[in-house]
Amino acid sequence: MTNLPGIVITGASGRMGQMLIKTVQESDKARLVGVLERPGHDWIGKDIGECMGGAPMGVAVSDDALELFAHAQAVIDFTAPAATVEFAGLAAQARAVHVIGTTGLSEDDLKKINAAARHATVVRAGNMSLGVNLLVQLTKKVAAALDEDFDIEVIEAHHNKKVDAPSGTALMLGEAAAEGRGVSLDNVSDRGRDGITGARERGHIGFSAIRGGDIVGEHDVLFAAPGERVVLRHIATDRAIFARGALKAALWGQGKAPGEYDMMDVLGL
Amino acid sequence: MTNLPGIVITGASGRMGQMLIKTVQESDKARLVGVLERPGHDWIGKDIGECMGGAPMGVAVSDDALELFAHAQAVIDFTAPAATVEFAGLAAQARAVHVIGTTGLSEDDLKKINAAARHATVVRAGNMSLGVNLLVQLTKKVAAALDEDFDIEVIEAHHNKKVDAPSGTALMLGEAAAEGRGVSLDNVSDRGRDGITGARERGHIGFSAIRGGDIVGEHDVLFAAPGERVVLRHIATDRAIFARGALKAALWGQGKAPGEYDMMDVLGL
Amino acid sequence: MTNLPGIVITGASGRMGQMLIKTVQESDKARLVGVLERPGHDWIGKDIGECMGGAPMGVAVSDDALELFAHAQAVIDFTAPAATVEFAGLAAQARAVHVIGTTGLSEDDLKKINAAARHATVVRAGNMSLGVNLLVQLTKKVAAALDEDFDIEVIEAHHNKKVDAPSGTALMLGEAAAEGRGVSLDNVSDRGRDGITGARERGHIGFSAIRGGDIVGEHDVLFAAPGERVVLRHIATDRAIFARGALKAALWGQGKAPGEYDMMDVLGL
Amino acid sequence: MTNLPGIVITGASGRMGQMLIKTVQESDKARLVGVLERPGHDWIGKDIGECMGGAPMGVAVSDDALELFAHAQAVIDFTAPAATVEFAGLAAQARAVHVIGTTGLSEDDLKKINAAARHATVVRAGNMSLGVNLLVQLTKKVAAALDEDFDIEVIEAHHNKKVDAPSGTALMLGEAAAEGRGVSLDNVSDRGRDGITGARERGHIGFSAIRGGDIVGEHDVLFAAPGERVVLRHIATDRAIFARGALKAALWGQGKAPGEYDMMDVLGL
Repeated sequence: MTNLPGIVITGASGRMGQMLIKTVQESDKARLVGVLERPGHDWIGKDIGECMGGAPMGVAVSDDALELFAHAQAVIDFTAPAATVEFAGLAAQARAVHVIGTTGLSEDDLKKINAAARHATVVRAGNMSLGVNLLVQLTKKVAAALDEDFDIEVIEAHHNKKVDAPSGTALMLGEAAAEGRGVSLDNVSDRGRDGITGARERGHIGFSAIRGGDIVGEHDVLFAAPGERVVLRHIATDRAIFARGALKAALWGQGKAPGEYDMMDVLGL
Repeated sequence: MTNLPGIVITGASGRMGQMLIKTVQESDKARLVGVLERPGHDWIGKDIGECMGGAPMGVAVSDDALELFAHAQAVIDFTAPAATVEFAGLAAQARAVHVIGTTGLSEDDLKKINAAARHATVVRAGNMSLGVNLLVQLTKKVAAALDEDFDIEVIEAHHNKKVDAPSGTALMLGEAAAEGRGVSLDNVSDRGRDGITGARERGHIGFSAIRGGDIVGEHDVLFAAPGERVVLRHIATDRAIFARGALKAALWGQGKAPGEYDMMDVLGL
Repeated sequence: MTNLPGIVITGASGRMGQMLIKTVQESDKARLVGVLERPGHDWIGKDIGECMGGAPMGVAVSDDALELFAHAQAVIDFTAPAATVEFAGLAAQARAVHVIGTTGLSEDDLKKINAAARHATVVRAGNMSLGVNLLVQLTKKVAAALDEDFDIEVIEAHHNKKVDAPSGTALMLGEAAAEGRGVSLDNVSDRGRDGITGARERGHIGFSAIRGGDIVGEHDVLFAAPGERVVLRHIATDRAIFARGALKAALWGQGKAPGEYDMMDVLGL
Repeated sequence: MTNLPGIVITGASGRMGQMLIKTVQESDKARLVGVLERPGHDWIGKDIGECMGGAPMGVAVSDDALELFAHAQAVIDFTAPAATVEFAGLAAQARAVHVIGTTGLSEDDLKKINAAARHATVVRAGNMSLGVNLLVQLTKKVAAALDEDFDIEVIEAHHNKKVDAPSGTALMLGEAAAEGRGVSLDNVSDRGRDGITGARERGHIGFSAIRGGDIVGEHDVLFAAPGERVVLRHIATDRAIFARGALKAALWGQGKAPGEYDMMDVLGL
């Protein structure tokens, strides 16, 4: 067990942090060697298992990132832009693979992460699910293979707490479709269809957002022509897939040359 | 054969008129006894089968409504408001069942049709499909049975020529859901969801409109709660179902007391 | 809090038992007053929260059913036939509502439970989900409303560990469809369609079983006619819905006259 | 118009033959130059448009294949094996592209067609739909990209007249999935699931066949893992897509080197 790659999880008290901790703890391919929270947090110094309302895990919550990273082979990080930029530097210094699931990074943040990636292995993705990344690839290929007789629509469904529409993943799929067709999504995007819209414009890409219950995330890319339709669909039913994808990225990164990678690299797509 | 109910079709040259003519012609429960077009139309006096690009049917296109109605047991009418109001009076005079699929009728039009229905049997519906009418009924019942833990969403898909969103049938389903919950749809309707919308409001009814290819018409009513969902779905793949529903209404109306009926009555729902 | 109905959960160490315990513990409409396991089980005398790998709940696991039932307003019981029959007698004696989710009960077991229900309120159902019970009702009504032009198919999907096909719920839906049509399912059931089957027989009810991943349970009842289809669909994504349904039954049963009820009564369907 | 490629349709009186005739007639990229039926058929010598119950098309039905082929750039042929083998020789002789949608060809038939293809351009496919051929390609790729944590199921739905299950296209999709995984479909095929089946075996490929109404053809390839699913779906709503695919193949074949091609070549997949 002790020669399994050691993993540090940041943002230990958050929903995604806890999911990552459980995923690493249950894996037989990695060891949980540290969990990080910001200085002053209630959980500092306590056993993370007990903090999460379960059995002890033998790992105390720490607020010392550098110390933790120095003893780890990988850091999995779904926190916030400022923290992630700082961690990128520290992970590079510690020669630990940095897996980044943080969203909302600015151009400037990305530049700093990119600089860190000159000396370290970074894997960064907006969605760590294997299936979603596959769907993005397929969408691009199918959009390139089919002509504009096929109207493209992206339909997504999420839980009733979600505050934005369409989802980031839906937009990513729309981008992939536009790229496959060699057009800019901004020029062909149909959003919030309502009222007297007129006939659908040829070549446009439509978006629909369904909200209800606790739906984790469902995405359809519809290609509809006269007499036939192709649908590419992804259904997520458990947020653990994002944690599993991140762990997969952490393990994949071991021994890889420094640089910035994404989930397509990890999945070999 | 000759004692089968005789049917007249109005608006013979239109897409729906032609569909109705074929449906009656192919039925073994009714006879096509006349087809009507406005005076001056190219087709007047010619065989309707040949006008439609097929084999002769032995029925010439006429522009004399009263004469046709006098020899019919039912008139099926998907035309325009002004014509339909006039036909309502003539059908009542002729004691023929008047099946009305015309949309866009004003309050005043409805009042006139209602007056005609004092002396005649009228069946009027926005959608003559058996399945859609059933779905409306089910939606009302399910909305009444489930509480607001179940978020309601109406999702529809139609061909790329459709100019309005959501579809009239989607709105009819939304009305049924609102009625089942004892609320007014105007107060709870979520349409054209796009951008930073905030979390979904409890009790609201959402609408999504998908457009592509030659989709005839698909409607989902989704009830989504934590951990489970109920979906009521209707898929139309052939416009002939609207013609068959209208013919069914014409046959059902034979011998019924004067009055205004809808498809729920015809279907015994 | 102390005047909330007190609930006892049987079979405390099982997957469903633990789900029920968590559901009652998290509810603000009921109190967890006892959890039962068989004599000799490791957990007897220990705090149930800790046994389940979480924080203490202040309720020790007991092996004395009568003592527990005497202080409870309801017993929720997803165990095995022999235990359930015994509990039915004890719950009647204690005047506690007995909610039974146990499956595989024989005719003889049912007779004994029925006898107990002369003096006690019993709620028994093969599936405690609100949505599934609603679907069964709808299926019966729709099958009665639509004629045999509509071919009925029941399609279900479950996880890859499931050992039987079609699911019990699929068969329950098939029974409801057959009942709606006034036929016996045994005479019209099409299962395991494979090879040269010949054309589908009019009036038959088909079944398909999809198996994969960790799908909790999805059921479609399809009514397919020329040109249109109606689909009634239920999707379960969290087994907690069965626990929540059972708790709802326990609360509903408070103050009800003795007798044997099912989820249709609880849901007012 | 006269320099558009001239097309001959064989089996003119059959359902698929008539669909092909209409498709070519309505196209602005090809001319209908001849239609063939077997000697002795009622339609020989008559105008094909009138035979089909419509307006005249100015093309008489002929029984002389060689004469017709000699004046055509392509022959589209959905007939029977013996006729198709004969036509392959005649088309090669006439230097016309031979598009073959005939099914049920034996090994021996295929050998003869292959011989003809040494001197002529042949396009042959079990399913001429653009979307289905795309789906086959995608299925192979996705099956290769995802490991056996993803259970594969092929689900198809067809009209109630279909006599075999699963459909040929479903089997083609299953073959593609097996090929993607490097296994033989014969060893991993799960068909006609019913009764006590035991848990699903890892690596198997399941098939389900739904039958009802007039469903033209729908195919789902489901990849289901813990927490997520990918679905590749094709929906055919109009048999004309098969005719349009065949015409596309006929046009694509103009000027191509002799050889045997399939729809993947035509579609550039």
